[in-house]
Amino acid sequence: MPPSEPLGDWPNPNFRAAAHRTADLVADYLQRVPQYPVLGACKPGDVAAQLPAAPPEHAEPAEALLADYARIIEPNLTHWNHPGFLAYFSITGSGPGILGEWLAAGLNVNAMLWRTSPAATELEERVCDWLRQMLVLPSEFQGHLNDTASISTMLALAAAREAAGLDVRTHGLAGLPPLTVYCSDQAHSSVDKAAIALGLGLDQLRRIPCDAAFRLDVSALERVLAADRAAGKRPIALVATAGTTSTTSVDPLRALGEIARRENLWYHIDAAYAGSAAICPEFRALLDGLELADSVVTNPHKWLFTPVDCSVLFTRKPGVLKAAFALTPEYLRSAETGVTNLNEYGVQLGRRFRALKLWFVIRAFGAEGLRARIRQHVQWASEFRSWVEADPGFEVCAPSPFSTVCFRAVPPGTPEAQDRFNATLLESVNAAGPVFLSHTKLRDRYVLRLAIGNLRTTLAHVLQAWTLIGEAAKKLNA
Amino acid sequence: MPPSEPLGDWPNPNFRAAAHRTADLVADYLQRVPQYPVLGACKPGDVAAQLPAAPPEHAEPAEALLADYARIIEPNLTHWNHPGFLAYFSITGSGPGILGEWLAAGLNVNAMLWRTSPAATELEERVCDWLRQMLVLPSEFQGHLNDTASISTMLALAAAREAAGLDVRTHGLAGLPPLTVYCSDQAHSSVDKAAIALGLGLDQLRRIPCDAAFRLDVSALERVLAADRAAGKRPIALVATAGTTSTTSVDPLRALGEIARRENLWYHIDAAYAGSAAICPEFRALLDGLELADSVVTNPHKWLFTPVDCSVLFTRKPGVLKAAFALTPEYLRSAETGVTNLNEYGVQLGRRFRALKLWFVIRAFGAEGLRARIRQHVQWASEFRSWVEADPGFEVCAPSPFSTVCFRAVPPGTPEAQDRFNATLLESVNAAGPVFLSHTKLRDRYVLRLAIGNLRTTLAHVLQAWTLIGEAAKKLNA
Repeated sequence: MPPSEPLGDWPNPNFRAAAHRTADLVADYLQRVPQYPVLGACKPGDVAAQLPAAPPEHAEPAEALLADYARIIEPNLTHWNHPGFLAYFSITGSGPGILGEWLAAGLNVNAMLWRTSPAATELEERVCDWLRQMLVLPSEFQGHLNDTASISTMLALAAAREAAGLDVRTHGLAGLPPLTVYCSDQAHSSVDKAAIALGLGLDQLRRIPCDAAFRLDVSALERVLAADRAAGKRPIALVATAGTTSTTSVDPLRALGEIARRENLWYHIDAAYAGSAAICPEFRALLDGLELADSVVTNPHKWLFTPVDCSVLFTRKPGVLKAAFALTPEYLRSAETGVTNLNEYGVQLGRRFRALKLWFVIRAFGAEGLRARIRQHVQWASEFRSWVEADPGFEVCAPSPFSTVCFRAVPPGTPEAQDRFNATLLESVNAAGPVFLSHTKLRDRYVLRLAIGNLRTTLAHVLQAWTLIGEAAKKLNA
Repeated sequence: MPPSEPLGDWPNPNFRAAAHRTADLVADYLQRVPQYPVLGACKPGDVAAQLPAAPPEHAEPAEALLADYARIIEPNLTHWNHPGFLAYFSITGSGPGILGEWLAAGLNVNAMLWRTSPAATELEERVCDWLRQMLVLPSEFQGHLNDTASISTMLALAAAREAAGLDVRTHGLAGLPPLTVYCSDQAHSSVDKAAIALGLGLDQLRRIPCDAAFRLDVSALERVLAADRAAGKRPIALVATAGTTSTTSVDPLRALGEIARRENLWYHIDAAYAGSAAICPEFRALLDGLELADSVVTNPHKWLFTPVDCSVLFTRKPGVLKAAFALTPEYLRSAETGVTNLNEYGVQLGRRFRALKLWFVIRAFGAEGLRARIRQHVQWASEFRSWVEADPGFEVCAPSPFSTVCFRAVPPGTPEAQDRFNATLLESVNAAGPVFLSHTKLRDRYVLRLAIGNLRTTLAHVLQAWTLIGEAAKKLNA
């Protein structure tokens, strides 16, 4: 028999006390994080070894939870909120963004329908429109929030598939000719995952070679398109990247937009990283043609200081997304008319209240504050680049239009020996603790990447990275 | 020119002060929420009208953000954390779950690779295994966290497609025979969305009729399967539901598992709601056959008191998920071997640290505390059901094995008039403020649903709902 007294949640005074302790834990963490090595010192299995194999039978007090968080979890993480995190794309859980998440967690609403979250729905629409204005996209673009660019791009390509007029929603792809999608050889792996998920197949994702600056080669695209059409394939979409993952290169957006229009392809632009920079007019100019897209993804959780997860999918054809995905079973019907029911634009029915944190971030810094911060990051990357260029032991490996620099050491020796040198150099720099850089390959050569994007990073941290790189290279050369 | 002083985030003392104010805001909300009408009083457009059309150019202080949250957002929401929320499936952002989210927001890690979040990866594996043990699933089941059951089910069916041995990952679905999936006519719309997204097509989703208790009719399934095979279709998956959305009925899991094995179908069980109940032996018995699944989804953000989003996908064939989705571009390669890189099991590369909140919830209540809370909810639903049964003006419309009761008023009149009566009754009860119920249709008749799942709900709230229903019915009958 269940007990007759309702068991309920933590009593409110207990929650309040633990909430204040948690507030201090997080504030302490943000203060302390520069003292951690960016990469926690743990080896595989270290954390698992500290966690009981079986679930606890009995309740434990808040103190035990918070103490174990501090003891087991915090020291054994890679610290993405560390000023020395210069790997992949560096991100920020900013103060206002964190508090937006906190409020959303307390509310715990599900913004699947307008009726189930009026304020969450209308705030999401408004905040996405603010971002649209900041990116100087035409007013017909409508945005909604997804968790990740992986999902945003998958939805965009699902819209492309629907727009092909073959009623794939109803009949599926069986019996159709292969539907092909085009992107550069520098496009993100999320495009591959979308091609897999949507049933198009990796073979139907045509990765087009790039020019010397890692931008999709337009004439190569035209050749492949013509050959595919001749072979009976059905091209449906072109994915351009504005800020590739390896080098942050920008495909020729305008030229590609014109081809997409001429060839009747859905034009999706992956601006997950560099879209944020487009709030500055000088960087928006580098993204000329962005407005030709049928859909654009940009991730405020990348370079707009918003905690993960927060990805905006803009489209000028929201009706196509709805045509692909809208479904209203009886148990979700509601009386309101003329409202937006956000679940109709994608796969996920459940939707967190992500708009709150983005609203807080835009207001806390203001459009001018966001622009100024992005400009600083680009400026510091440019300074780092000048240091690399001035050192005969190093070379810059790609243009760096934004806040990411690809470079490598060029010791004497074969290309393979140089690759090994750079891999060891990276390992050694990352093992030091204060900074974390990552790598990529460009034209088959191993290349280091320094990416600036965390709000706690300063020029001093970038300089420290360069000093550590120089010292490590010297030691390896000795 | 950017300013030379780094602009950075909010200064730490400012963040700390705002964090404590936010802690109080959330604690106040949880204390105050019973006084709100469950459905905020706002009309479409009310919130939008209070939000500036253009983004702010200048920074605003934390006070302004928090004040606008309290003024514009909080009163204009549907309160999912309200004890009178008895609609859809009622959920809980519990105290420990909220604090888990807070810490995750502060850390802002991305658990895409072991290297990028060692503790997040190993905690996710361990906590999923705790839940596996609580559900009494065999040890070969491996779990990982997704945002929603919509995604978990889509991934499960992608695995089913991959397991068919047609190399859909590489070649796509073009040129293949139609691949068919089977579920009941009571299965959730997420199965439809998965069929759309994966390119199978809605036509290839065979919705099989149910028996009198809204459970998939096994003999009807066998007939459809045989006819499909005879017609040259290729059946790949069977989706059973353990806790359907309308009535929480449980498909005959064991019989379906045997058919799936015989017919070589991937067997996916959607236990998004009722999976949580399986931590109690008496309800686990209702889910006999759960262990026959190839994959099972259950959502701790539904009935395990964890804030949205948190969905666990268990599978005994994790290698198939990896075969479908694993991709490692150079920029994601890391040196560690023998570790789990969680992005390889699905579409999304970016992954929030969701394990933290689930760890906190399981520890804060303990397995016995979770079981006792679920038992109370089921007990109270059973009491509500007895009140309905005892009232000649009402009838219960389906079995209620868990915490959800389907019922309706049965005034004299045609079935259509009864439907209108119940729709008006629902509207009137929900307009009162203290409670929010939802509806569905069963055998084409309009039916009300009362779903218990929030930790703040007590038997008194359920009784209040019944009183309001009775009063509203009386008024409508008068």
